[in-house]
Amino acid sequence: MQTIRVETPSVRYDVFAGSGLLETLAQRIESVAGRLPRRVFVLTSASIWALWGHSLQQSFPDAPVVLFLEPGEKHKTLTSAEKLLRQMARAGADRGSLLIAFGGGIVGDVGGFLAAIYMRGIPFIQVPTTFLAQVDSSVGGKTGVNLAEGKNLVGSFHQPLAVFADIGVLGTLQDRELRAGLMESVKAGIIRDRSLVRFMEDHADEVRGRDPKALEKVIAASIRMKAGVVNLDEREIGLRMILNLGHTVGHALEQATGYKSLLHGEAVGWGMVASLYLARKRGTISSAQFDRLQSLIHRYGPLPPLKVRAAKVVAATASDKKNVGGVRRFVLPVGIGDAGVVEDLTAAELESAVGYMLARAKRN
Amino acid sequence: MQTIRVETPSVRYDVFAGSGLLETLAQRIESVAGRLPRRVFVLTSASIWALWGHSLQQSFPDAPVVLFLEPGEKHKTLTSAEKLLRQMARAGADRGSLLIAFGGGIVGDVGGFLAAIYMRGIPFIQVPTTFLAQVDSSVGGKTGVNLAEGKNLVGSFHQPLAVFADIGVLGTLQDRELRAGLMESVKAGIIRDRSLVRFMEDHADEVRGRDPKALEKVIAASIRMKAGVVNLDEREIGLRMILNLGHTVGHALEQATGYKSLLHGEAVGWGMVASLYLARKRGTISSAQFDRLQSLIHRYGPLPPLKVRAAKVVAATASDKKNVGGVRRFVLPVGIGDAGVVEDLTAAELESAVGYMLARAKRN
Repeated sequence: MQTIRVETPSVRYDVFAGSGLLETLAQRIESVAGRLPRRVFVLTSASIWALWGHSLQQSFPDAPVVLFLEPGEKHKTLTSAEKLLRQMARAGADRGSLLIAFGGGIVGDVGGFLAAIYMRGIPFIQVPTTFLAQVDSSVGGKTGVNLAEGKNLVGSFHQPLAVFADIGVLGTLQDRELRAGLMESVKAGIIRDRSLVRFMEDHADEVRGRDPKALEKVIAASIRMKAGVVNLDEREIGLRMILNLGHTVGHALEQATGYKSLLHGEAVGWGMVASLYLARKRGTISSAQFDRLQSLIHRYGPLPPLKVRAAKVVAATASDKKNVGGVRRFVLPVGIGDAGVVEDLTAAELESAVGYMLARAKRN
Repeated sequence: MQTIRVETPSVRYDVFAGSGLLETLAQRIESVAGRLPRRVFVLTSASIWALWGHSLQQSFPDAPVVLFLEPGEKHKTLTSAEKLLRQMARAGADRGSLLIAFGGGIVGDVGGFLAAIYMRGIPFIQVPTTFLAQVDSSVGGKTGVNLAEGKNLVGSFHQPLAVFADIGVLGTLQDRELRAGLMESVKAGIIRDRSLVRFMEDHADEVRGRDPKALEKVIAASIRMKAGVVNLDEREIGLRMILNLGHTVGHALEQATGYKSLLHGEAVGWGMVASLYLARKRGTISSAQFDRLQSLIHRYGPLPPLKVRAAKVVAATASDKKNVGGVRRFVLPVGIGDAGVVEDLTAAELESAVGYMLARAKRN
């Protein structure tokens, strides 16, 4: 097991990554929180609960109250949140109750948001069950839901008491989900960790084949990268923005395709392709670096083809949360292992990058 | 104009109380925020906007985007919040946009909540237009909405950049609303400010007759009391709980009567009667103090009669947010100008206090 400390001005907590965490969860929570809260709620999905509910439950002296979220982005809404908050109220949740978010990124985002706003904030624990949630969304305290107008437009910063990333649960993950999640690790390497890029280049077969040692290495490095950035910039005022590499175009792709055909990691993978194109055009990476990083992305793919018009994708970037006061912000890699934010991106540049990405996608 | 500083570990801002603030709002925001944000949104009610919209708007170089909340507790919901958040998204609100909550307590609570969760938090300003909102709900950063299961069960702590309490707008306030709001000032005196109790006893006619000097005095003293408590305990871990004097039974009364027949301040007035009864029984106030404080409450009444069964009120106290881990917390006055929290209140004591209150209400 590896332990990664997240430490911001407002909170301090640990992310634990390893095997066998699920079966001993209650004791681990007790040691983190001082005592096991009297009332424990678990937000999960029916499929995760069917596979892993028994493992999670076994260490609790009293069975937690289980709340279910329907799968898919279309249920990541204020309407779902209200239904769940009402279930919590009816089951007697109070300010001392604990909420465990046990599932993928959507369960984590919604669970964190419920914990953030129920009685103006109750403690919560993240137990992410997808690769993507383990390396990315469970760390950093971002929680929220979608509006019809855009993804994650509503939410809170609410940090968990701890994150338990159990590598064992990845055993039942679909291959496509694992590959999509690995895009966030590719991103972690590109923006902040050359040695992770090298490791992922050299050990692609082990990682994709779910070798536990290789997976733990990639997961821990990705979490460490993210924790390091969050530690320096909890509220996304500056540095944290580099975590959005590939996300401006990625979110736009998800929005333009109705959050249906693409997994988040796949959209980010394509978004990174667009970012690499812009970075090469602007000269913040060389042609050789462009080729090397793009082949890394496709090696952990294959990314699905894209069926969407360029104009629709470009239009969808307008609602990006990083835009402030009309200024369009965009993250570009700088060499390998570094990244920066540009604010002077022209519409023409963005269009050319989206055009390149869509043309490249025709070959997939 | 009086300026009261609110200063917690997380934020620092000022509450301005006086006349003529509305007509100069844009310049005042500019001086607080450094510059006037490019996009300004105003959440208000149709009736307040009809009366005072022109005054607020006149100082802004570009007309703010106006969002309307339907009046009444029944619209203080996540459903309303979602509708308004979507309007903001469609109108292009971004992280640098400013939201002004311009209305009574419900507008302030909902507006603060929108600002807390839109893109995980945008700046906001409170411009409270009722006495109650000026002395109480606009200060302290509590924001939120109701669930069917109880009032304010969902929300955030989100502090405004500033609060502008313009005494001029109280001119169009209904007499019943003013009286209900004054219950929070009575509360402020009872729990923390003997001299305010004395002033309200000695100047009841001027205050109820809306003498501007007397009103400013009561408003500023009430805000100063609340700010002092919030400064010491932003998150309601300890001291801040005394602000809930009269609120456990008050909220239960509102819930048991379906948030229809009682104004919040009226419910708190009756709740304070129940608290005084318990305090006298427990000996934390004398009989003379009991008589004196109860007559102060009724002097700023008259409180409306109560049409509700005792059992229903007692049952409704079970969902109080102050209860943690099954422990029932209750605020009792200690003499005049002090208060404390008890955790060992028995069901029988609570029933007797509710019984006394309902019997006393028969005489109103």
